[in-house]
Amino acid sequence: MKDTIKQWMQEHREEAVHFLQQVVQAPSIQGNEADAQKLVADKLAAMGLEVDMWEPGGEELIHHSYFCSPRTVFSGSPNVVGIWRGEGGGKSLILNGHIDVVPSGDREQWEDDPFSGKIEDGKMYGRGVTDMKGGNIAMLYAVECLKQLGIRLKGDVVFQSVVEEESGGSGTLAAILRGYKADAALIPEPTGMKIFPKQQGSMWFRIKVKGRSAHGGTRYEGVSAIEKSMLVVDAVRKLETERNEKISDPLYQNIPIPIPINIGSIHGGEWPSSVPDLVELQGRMGVAPEEEMEDAKRAMEKALSSLEDDWLKEHPPVLEWFGAQWVPGMIEPDHELMNRLIHAYRSVRGEEPLIEASPWGTDGGLLAKVGGTPAIVFGPGITGMAHYPNEYIELDKVVECAEIIALTIMQWCGVAGEKKAGAI
Amino acid sequence: MKDTIKQWMQEHREEAVHFLQQVVQAPSIQGNEADAQKLVADKLAAMGLEVDMWEPGGEELIHHSYFCSPRTVFSGSPNVVGIWRGEGGGKSLILNGHIDVVPSGDREQWEDDPFSGKIEDGKMYGRGVTDMKGGNIAMLYAVECLKQLGIRLKGDVVFQSVVEEESGGSGTLAAILRGYKADAALIPEPTGMKIFPKQQGSMWFRIKVKGRSAHGGTRYEGVSAIEKSMLVVDAVRKLETERNEKISDPLYQNIPIPIPINIGSIHGGEWPSSVPDLVELQGRMGVAPEEEMEDAKRAMEKALSSLEDDWLKEHPPVLEWFGAQWVPGMIEPDHELMNRLIHAYRSVRGEEPLIEASPWGTDGGLLAKVGGTPAIVFGPGITGMAHYPNEYIELDKVVECAEIIALTIMQWCGVAGEKKAGAI
Repeated sequence: MKDTIKQWMQEHREEAVHFLQQVVQAPSIQGNEADAQKLVADKLAAMGLEVDMWEPGGEELIHHSYFCSPRTVFSGSPNVVGIWRGEGGGKSLILNGHIDVVPSGDREQWEDDPFSGKIEDGKMYGRGVTDMKGGNIAMLYAVECLKQLGIRLKGDVVFQSVVEEESGGSGTLAAILRGYKADAALIPEPTGMKIFPKQQGSMWFRIKVKGRSAHGGTRYEGVSAIEKSMLVVDAVRKLETERNEKISDPLYQNIPIPIPINIGSIHGGEWPSSVPDLVELQGRMGVAPEEEMEDAKRAMEKALSSLEDDWLKEHPPVLEWFGAQWVPGMIEPDHELMNRLIHAYRSVRGEEPLIEASPWGTDGGLLAKVGGTPAIVFGPGITGMAHYPNEYIELDKVVECAEIIALTIMQWCGVAGEKKAGAI
Repeated sequence: MKDTIKQWMQEHREEAVHFLQQVVQAPSIQGNEADAQKLVADKLAAMGLEVDMWEPGGEELIHHSYFCSPRTVFSGSPNVVGIWRGEGGGKSLILNGHIDVVPSGDREQWEDDPFSGKIEDGKMYGRGVTDMKGGNIAMLYAVECLKQLGIRLKGDVVFQSVVEEESGGSGTLAAILRGYKADAALIPEPTGMKIFPKQQGSMWFRIKVKGRSAHGGTRYEGVSAIEKSMLVVDAVRKLETERNEKISDPLYQNIPIPIPINIGSIHGGEWPSSVPDLVELQGRMGVAPEEEMEDAKRAMEKALSSLEDDWLKEHPPVLEWFGAQWVPGMIEPDHELMNRLIHAYRSVRGEEPLIEASPWGTDGGLLAKVGGTPAIVFGPGITGMAHYPNEYIELDKVVECAEIIALTIMQWCGVAGEKKAGAI
């Protein structure tokens, strides 16, 4: 069966690559996901899946205790789910991928248009190709492969193309609230073909640092919020070091900073000739897989309230948690889906997989904690390329990943039979 | 005559304060100066001056070598000039004040609305009241006083209410190009009743600092432009220290930082979960009164190219000079207008004036270098309150300044006669 799948993948590789390119060329940054989702929905329908496409929203979602998004209206940002009903007696599997991509950043650092989908030397380039459209297309072609080979499954496969993962998972939360649950889930985020049974959580924060304005020519009459914000950045860096020194989980042994605190933006001051009186930092704090998010929040609060600076003691930085958060998640290391995936991996790649903990949050935390669906993260994208200029993916990895997912689906959901004799 | 003027001022104080309040309540930030200018123009017309109101612009202005503005279109931003023609045989005087104010900054640091014009304990509050609407109204009431007392002058008085001083002086440059020149000028910027025969120049700069983007969860794969920008801020601070250690002019002896380099704004990064790949700093560099602006620029370039950091050596910060600049300026210490002003000051305040160099640029540099009109800066506002939250002015100082200006005008322009017998 492994060889039949491999052969099908080779025969359909060009088609899959072309479809990935189309999806990459639809620049599905937040609020702009509809075009890419339409491509996916049409494809799922053509494959013969039941398609459910809807815009998240409503009271239940936006008042849910795990709802976390900078917006409450999702018009133009539909979720897409495709259902392949099994014939009964098998385990169900959610295949979950997000369609939203982060902004492309400084245009000058891209060699081509960030949404070019350019192919060169076996790589495809573009914002989102690694995080995680390449993974989405791998799982989509895994399903199409099994369908076309005439495989009939016992358990259901629920293919999810969700919005809003990059800002807190409200797309996946909406899918859970719509009733989509399963015995387990696979999320092909860019793990570089590593298997992540544990996912780090994370939360967005903002810190407001006050100064006091004055004319720049008499700047000694004021207090620069930029200079004070540097003390805050130093304190955050120190907190990060302290937190990471405590991490002893062997799944993190090869990761330079297991639970990073990233300061993603800084904005302050309005006028070159005025002393800036307010700087706002925004960032993302990593939460260890077994850590409570509230404990991580308290650690940050403590670091900011212990700053050794007279001005900051009198004008303490204001910390807020806003926008996105990703709940940490994990699956038992000996869970059956882990065994099935490891087996399929060995079978396709002829080597042992690397098993680590993820350096970022995924929608796996929500699937587990809210949906009762434990998740593994495993995908073809390159971890270090996520959110990076000239983001790319190796197309060979997309195909290999599709093969591994196809085998895993068959093993996990169980095969009821085949429709077309001779197809295998 | 001193006492007659003082008496007139006391009788008209309430009216002047009310007019200042109206002008402060017109929030004349850049692009929004028309309402305040209309008040001034109507007042000048009511006083019997010839009023010239026009929007700056045209090829001669925007291609002038001293033109420096973030904009080239000034619709909605008129200049106002009021001319009081002398009868001949006297020296002419430009009274120059800017109507534009800097933005109000962080609203939370203001106790009242920034444009309230609130009066309490002899002070008026509001953005621009000290820098420099209080000074403008002082010179306006000085002129009205002399007009109402029936004084006839020999030389012309040219009252100028200009736009755009806060971003490089294109309002004053436009007035010079329209033909307004004089034997000398007085600019009532907020000197705290000190007399500034020398004015520091200044220039706006922006510095772009590159990083390399990556996902915040693997931030060690990227380079934070925020962290790199801190090294740049440190280097600018060091340059400022070195430059100021060389200043020995006694006019600067009481000023903590004679020629400051202010970093006024910082903006970088787009997403909390991404490593920021670009930070832009904007600021204002002070230029010593006798220094060439090009020499100051070279000093900044050198400081930025000598940064000891491997990343910044490979990706040097990009420095640009943009938007505003203020040409340094000076008047001879023994100029006749200096003597007249010092004499009037002593006569009204009964003490010696403090004579210093200004901590900021004014339109005086343009008046001298382009218009051939040497200028003194002297005004009632509080130097440290310029661009400050809860900006205020002491109303007594406005009145005293008006008295001193009225006496100075009479002494400088010369009195041809009085219209109304018994008025003095």
